[in-house]
Amino acid sequence: MYTNFVHTKILNTTRRPTIGVFDSGFGGLTVLKALLEVVPDAEYAYFGDTARLPYGSKSVETVARYAVEASHFLESQGAQLLVIACNTATALALDRICAAAHVPVVGVVEPGAEAASSATKNRKVVVIGTEATVSSHAYRKALENRGLQAREKACPLLVPLVEEGWVEHSVTEQVAQIYLAEAFADGFHDADTMVLGCTHYPLLKSLLRRVAPAHVSIVDSAESTARAVSTHFQELLPDSDSGVEERRSAPRLKFFATDSTEKFRRLGQRFLGLPIENVEHVDLKE
Amino acid sequence: MYTNFVHTKILNTTRRPTIGVFDSGFGGLTVLKALLEVVPDAEYAYFGDTARLPYGSKSVETVARYAVEASHFLESQGAQLLVIACNTATALALDRICAAAHVPVVGVVEPGAEAASSATKNRKVVVIGTEATVSSHAYRKALENRGLQAREKACPLLVPLVEEGWVEHSVTEQVAQIYLAEAFADGFHDADTMVLGCTHYPLLKSLLRRVAPAHVSIVDSAESTARAVSTHFQELLPDSDSGVEERRSAPRLKFFATDSTEKFRRLGQRFLGLPIENVEHVDLKE
Repeated sequence: MYTNFVHTKILNTTRRPTIGVFDSGFGGLTVLKALLEVVPDAEYAYFGDTARLPYGSKSVETVARYAVEASHFLESQGAQLLVIACNTATALALDRICAAAHVPVVGVVEPGAEAASSATKNRKVVVIGTEATVSSHAYRKALENRGLQAREKACPLLVPLVEEGWVEHSVTEQVAQIYLAEAFADGFHDADTMVLGCTHYPLLKSLLRRVAPAHVSIVDSAESTARAVSTHFQELLPDSDSGVEERRSAPRLKFFATDSTEKFRRLGQRFLGLPIENVEHVDLKE
Repeated sequence: MYTNFVHTKILNTTRRPTIGVFDSGFGGLTVLKALLEVVPDAEYAYFGDTARLPYGSKSVETVARYAVEASHFLESQGAQLLVIACNTATALALDRICAAAHVPVVGVVEPGAEAASSATKNRKVVVIGTEATVSSHAYRKALENRGLQAREKACPLLVPLVEEGWVEHSVTEQVAQIYLAEAFADGFHDADTMVLGCTHYPLLKSLLRRVAPAHVSIVDSAESTARAVSTHFQELLPDSDSGVEERRSAPRLKFFATDSTEKFRRLGQRFLGLPIENVEHVDLKE
């Protein structure tokens, strides 16, 4: 259960470890939503780089620079574990973020690939994502490392359609049909698993379920990422029993955004599925 | 006529005045295209803030900060006149840019409103643009100052559809139909003029021509802005005849982008309608 949290400094004011969650904007809130279910006994600091979104159409250099800045910010807020809840940032910059961070880092690509590997029977997987994620071939590499065949397909219109709120709209259905027809063409018509390689796409899950071939399993990397985080999180817990009571209370959430906090509150709750009360504006240039 | 230019420092190496053109990305190239026809005897420095696009979904504070940085950059490149070839930056930050600049500044909203005022017979005008431009009501104010009634309509999907290259696609036509049906509803069915309040939209002009009511005149603010710039430009020309020969040669263009230069070249030529050869990467943080 989540309740409104009291706005407090996270640094060392609690015995519960803080997990820093980072995304270019709102999509990472679908990962946070999964984390709240799987790892409820944590503090959370969520950073949305909304002034510079979207990352999906930007270059490696730019995304890496932004992601490293965000990671440092979250560490300054006391994060003892970083979740890169953005497929583009993970795909383009996970190595750079790991090298720059002083705490463990979990991205969304490896957990997504692992879940696809468990789900597929014929070892043929389709991945849909942003232009930048697809161009990086991070998913293809992660899937091929597991002995799977992969087809990646960029779907640049799906993010703006979600942000327009057209999650159950005939236009979105047509766009998804066009993209998925191309994704499942030419030797991939029998792929039996599709990875949602963008944290916006879980909002389209039921529409994509209708549009995708009926035999296809859909893998939401938000859920598999939350399970991966859970493993790391156990290592952060103190051995003693002190603080167990506090750990069992509802998670506390703190949100940071680089653009309008009002817009973050308004749009963010669509992704988190919960009201967002406390958002602080951050200017990374300062 | 435009020919490939030699990549040279603009500062004081020529008698031809330099016009600095600024946009969040590629859309401003439609304004540059109009400028090349109307003011061929200039140097041009075009700055596309592609690492931080789009501005259309961002807040006033963020857009103003980015736009002022861009203006200072163009001045540092020798610009003697600034064209804010971005409706969102003009609508949200023209006053801040003018206050921060040391040279004359021309935005796209006033020329667009002026052209609409000339075109309309029944004084009722529809303006389509990004969410941020529409929320600012900059067009409504500019049109009401001229005694016109205005209806503004945000069309956030049109920019991503143009960037996907779907400029003559049935999905784009349906999206435009939905947006324009709302724009021309409730007392505006007889509006006789529609302003393209976003520099991406000229690429959709023929599609919008089909979708808009037949009696509606479409105003492209790129063209009216170019005419406004032409007036200012005359004042920058030296009185003497020296340099007339040089001034008459083809315009020289220099492009700067904050994200990938390769992508700027590739996507940019769709908007400019000409090959883009020389793009320099700029990092405004340094």
